[in-house]
Amino acid sequence: MALLLLDLHPEKKSKSNFQLKTPKGTRDYNEKEMAVRQNLFNTITKIFQRHGGVTIDTPVFEMRDILSGKYGEDSKLIYDLADQGGEDCSLRYDLTVPFARYLAMQGKKDAQQMKRYQIAKVYRRDQPIMTKGRLREFYQCDFDIAGAYDSMIPDAEILKILSDTMDAVKIPFHIKLNHRQILDGIFEVCGVPPQQIRSISAAVDKLDKLPWEDVKKEMVQEKGLAEDVANRIGDYVQLVKDTPSLLQHLQNDQKLMAHEGASKGLADVKLLLEFLEIFNVRDRVKLDLSLARGLDYYTGIIYEAITDKSEGVGSIAAGGRYDNLVGMFSGTNKAGKPKTIPCVGVSIGVERVFSILMSRRNINDIKSNATQVYVISVGDGLLKERMELVQELWDAGINASFTLKNKPKLEKQWLACEKEQIPFAVIVGKDEIESGKVRIKDMRSKNSDQGGGLVLDRKDMISELKKKVDQAFY
Amino acid sequence: MALLLLDLHPEKKSKSNFQLKTPKGTRDYNEKEMAVRQNLFNTITKIFQRHGGVTIDTPVFEMRDILSGKYGEDSKLIYDLADQGGEDCSLRYDLTVPFARYLAMQGKKDAQQMKRYQIAKVYRRDQPIMTKGRLREFYQCDFDIAGAYDSMIPDAEILKILSDTMDAVKIPFHIKLNHRQILDGIFEVCGVPPQQIRSISAAVDKLDKLPWEDVKKEMVQEKGLAEDVANRIGDYVQLVKDTPSLLQHLQNDQKLMAHEGASKGLADVKLLLEFLEIFNVRDRVKLDLSLARGLDYYTGIIYEAITDKSEGVGSIAAGGRYDNLVGMFSGTNKAGKPKTIPCVGVSIGVERVFSILMSRRNINDIKSNATQVYVISVGDGLLKERMELVQELWDAGINASFTLKNKPKLEKQWLACEKEQIPFAVIVGKDEIESGKVRIKDMRSKNSDQGGGLVLDRKDMISELKKKVDQAFY
Repeated sequence: MALLLLDLHPEKKSKSNFQLKTPKGTRDYNEKEMAVRQNLFNTITKIFQRHGGVTIDTPVFEMRDILSGKYGEDSKLIYDLADQGGEDCSLRYDLTVPFARYLAMQGKKDAQQMKRYQIAKVYRRDQPIMTKGRLREFYQCDFDIAGAYDSMIPDAEILKILSDTMDAVKIPFHIKLNHRQILDGIFEVCGVPPQQIRSISAAVDKLDKLPWEDVKKEMVQEKGLAEDVANRIGDYVQLVKDTPSLLQHLQNDQKLMAHEGASKGLADVKLLLEFLEIFNVRDRVKLDLSLARGLDYYTGIIYEAITDKSEGVGSIAAGGRYDNLVGMFSGTNKAGKPKTIPCVGVSIGVERVFSILMSRRNINDIKSNATQVYVISVGDGLLKERMELVQELWDAGINASFTLKNKPKLEKQWLACEKEQIPFAVIVGKDEIESGKVRIKDMRSKNSDQGGGLVLDRKDMISELKKKVDQAFY
Repeated sequence: MALLLLDLHPEKKSKSNFQLKTPKGTRDYNEKEMAVRQNLFNTITKIFQRHGGVTIDTPVFEMRDILSGKYGEDSKLIYDLADQGGEDCSLRYDLTVPFARYLAMQGKKDAQQMKRYQIAKVYRRDQPIMTKGRLREFYQCDFDIAGAYDSMIPDAEILKILSDTMDAVKIPFHIKLNHRQILDGIFEVCGVPPQQIRSISAAVDKLDKLPWEDVKKEMVQEKGLAEDVANRIGDYVQLVKDTPSLLQHLQNDQKLMAHEGASKGLADVKLLLEFLEIFNVRDRVKLDLSLARGLDYYTGIIYEAITDKSEGVGSIAAGGRYDNLVGMFSGTNKAGKPKTIPCVGVSIGVERVFSILMSRRNINDIKSNATQVYVISVGDGLLKERMELVQELWDAGINASFTLKNKPKLEKQWLACEKEQIPFAVIVGKDEIESGKVRIKDMRSKNSDQGGGLVLDRKDMISELKKKVDQAFY
């Protein structure tokens, strides 16, 4: 009813007292940003498809129980939907848990093997830092290989995919690699009580930002770990060696090698590196015992790709193997074992990549439309003639626009064509109409060689423009 | 911590008591459905770009105040986020109101003109009918032209875009057209009190599902309209004539033509039809005085595209002109007039289109991956040799896969290749490896002409496959 009143009496509208903004931690993306984003998504999708990836879609919100108990302390950052009668739902926090839920719901044998990618929004009620691009609504971009395969083969392909993706967006990087079973082996061998392993692991994960002394203090003073245990951990996680030397060092560590998990983890890493050699990405990877990764659900190799200094150092992709997550949803089989599906995956920090790509561009130079031809009239408006021309162009599959006015000024038409970075103009005046001609002008060349443009018979317009457009766009 | 225990003692996991499902009214889309959906989105995007469209992105949730008072009675269907401290937010109900909010926030003159499209999810707590595809989370697909242009030129392009889109997805249709000012003029001339116009209009909107007698009953008995007023309305909205005759009939109606709005509306429709003639879509459009459209915010032409009988009759796209919506957000200028931006747009019923496309396909025939080549070994596994081959293919930009096992059975490799509908296989055995050869087989041809396939030097593999792939995919 308010609208009807507005409609009939626009002059009576008083300014409303709401705030004209997007919610905290969210933002709009304008057409130029979206052109860059979509180009980025397409580039990544191509790499994902090169590796046999297929995509699925899951709802933006899930049953609350599906998400609970998956994210440790960060569960407090989950957005809940209001109780409006009905089910308790929450916005998804990542794409991995919904994917595991999806796999568990596919009863059939078919779905037990899947290379799936997904580029979609996730939600976290974190303290936003808009200037650093830390938002509450952001895209994640995941590739995961689900299925029981042979050791380290899917893991190697995932790291290859990570590398191919970074190469495709031209971001220099290296990969820190570790293995949960090596890490847990170290903690056990050093004497960490089993129930403290995840919490001590979380402390180690801070070593990329804090010096060892601070991390040790957290372990000993906050978490009550014995100092000698902490010191032994420090000896491991502070080891700085090239990967072959580090592998040899661990291999020679009889106490650690007597730990079944650590020994298996080391064999995994060695085999993985062999495969990565074949995939031409071995030299991108560095074994780093201080990499721990926050999420609880990893069970095998873990990794993090870091940009090189040229782009400001920071994590740009990460992932790992999580063999038990699907089992949390799919229950147990008759023998009482969880019907799990082993998985390994990577999440590309696509928002970070987007920021880097934007920082390389002058926003004014970004063309946001795909228009190839602008139809311009000289003189008396010629609206219907311009409409006939765009109609011909559209029917021929050419992306064409014109000024949606009866009698647009010539100057304004030129300006629109230039502002929208449209490469070709079709120009008509009374003379051209009467003699059955059109003028075609290449708007990209600033030199005056072409004078008023190429004059040709109307019937040849489409074939000539198709030639020009093909050259300009491909 | 639960996860750590699961990790260490998987056999102890007891079946959880949560429901393994997606929330009511939502669903997953598997990889085959997604292949069809993405193809559909790409097809529509191409049409939108042909008409100069650019895209933007807005958050999935908005400040609650932005949405309130925009959807009449349907506001009760809006999903709210829980109050977790902070702002009151709700999931978006459509893409139009967020677009109007976006436009109002762009202060600059630049954003006053925009052809924008958006294909994104919206949310409605409606009673879902999954079998009919009525969901609580679904995609909308909108194209809108914002800006002060000359009469009916953008409106004509919007109807052209609607038509081009339906043609691109090969769905036969026709368009019902009406004009809010003609309709409101009819109501006023018939004697409907101003404050009842929207409510009577909502009753008329039911004429596509109910007979006139029922609609009249609603007007008279439920809404208290005088019976003679209802009868006069009935004389108008039941008029069945071809469009030129109907236009003539209204033109001859002196009482109606004395109404300023109705007379302007009629002039609009006539001009629009002239333009649609030039755009070759005039014969798709039929003036229909019984079309009212539910939403409050329309101010000019309104339309609805209906599928022809072959696809089961139903609305497949709809829209109209809404000149005052942006003004509701942008406040007033110094003269006290709302700083509005006139808009006209169309929403393609993309979920309905998707259902029609799926009903035309056998789901098993849908190829969900983009893989072009499958690498197969005969004999002893040859894992590293297969890895070297896929690596070569990937580096050449060819989409390639292989079985992620050490010693896969030949049969299983063929099966994977067939199931994933991969057109070409590269086959190696010990003999080929030793003699520096590979075999290429076209998996699409069932005849045995090719025997064991084409044997060629390893160094010629890429160029031969590129040729074959180009032929197969383009």
